[in-house]
Amino acid sequence: MGIFPKDIKTMDDLFVHTLRDIYYAEKQILKALPEMIEKATDPQLKQAFQMHLGETKNHVTRCEQVFKMHGVEAKGIDCPAIDGIIEEAQDIAGEVEDKEVLNAALAAAAQAVEHYEISRYGTLIAWAKQLGRNDCASVLQKNLDEEKAADRKLTELAEERLNLRAAS
Amino acid sequence: MGIFPKDIKTMDDLFVHTLRDIYYAEKQILKALPEMIEKATDPQLKQAFQMHLGETKNHVTRCEQVFKMHGVEAKGIDCPAIDGIIEEAQDIAGEVEDKEVLNAALAAAAQAVEHYEISRYGTLIAWAKQLGRNDCASVLQKNLDEEKAADRKLTELAEERLNLRAAS
Repeated sequence: MGIFPKDIKTMDDLFVHTLRDIYYAEKQILKALPEMIEKATDPQLKQAFQMHLGETKNHVTRCEQVFKMHGVEAKGIDCPAIDGIIEEAQDIAGEVEDKEVLNAALAAAAQAVEHYEISRYGTLIAWAKQLGRNDCASVLQKNLDEEKAADRKLTELAEERLNLRAAS
Repeated sequence: MGIFPKDIKTMDDLFVHTLRDIYYAEKQILKALPEMIEKATDPQLKQAFQMHLGETKNHVTRCEQVFKMHGVEAKGIDCPAIDGIIEEAQDIAGEVEDKEVLNAALAAAAQAVEHYEISRYGTLIAWAKQLGRNDCASVLQKNLDEEKAADRKLTELAEERLNLRAAS
């Protein structure tokens, strides 16, 4: 339950709530990525994570832009989903001994993060459009496009490189 | 950290670990869905959730089949990711007053669940193939296909029906 039960009364409230959820999530990802970069030993995976760290900083800025466009305060709210997904990524990273197996595990954990964000941005874009905020939708679309591209890049790296090495 | 740190040594260990993660997740979803069915007031959303409850039962059975094919014990392991995603779904459901807005929120929460599963099954299938277990991969593919179809169905319902009503 939220601190203020039943505080979401309209679709607009729901949109703002979910925007605050992904804003919190992006900031948590920003904190978690440096550890993943450090743990990754495959140079291409490390580079993909580093690139995504830069993108994530832009995602935070774009969320702030949407808050401003929509005339509401930019603030995050607790998001147990991303906390759980990141906790799981850290758990698995702590349990894998072999470096190649760890690279495969890290890529998979990052894809779970990407998929959470893909789901959230997809929803937010549909809601923004429904609320007549095509301006907000198009800013959020940029974040969604980059999350999808990051996910595809990880699939490619995993299938062409990381899984092969992890299994050998 | 796991109870037994560094207990994942090979790609095979990682595959089994992640299979146990999604097995636990499917069982948690099985427990969470009846509440979502009860809370949904849109008949088509209720029906989609009910259909997915049936599918989820099959997913559990298919995971057990894969454990058996792979010669390991069918057991779940704690999955903080799905716990967080479900907790967030329950939080949001408790915070929304309006029924139409609640339907839109429930569909979105279910899509976050679907996306977690899509990510996990995608990874498991790639790993199974890498390990030469195409037999396991093709069973897991059935689960993935149904998760993707469920996600598409929810997008369709949200965009054609739920969001429209929630915003009016």
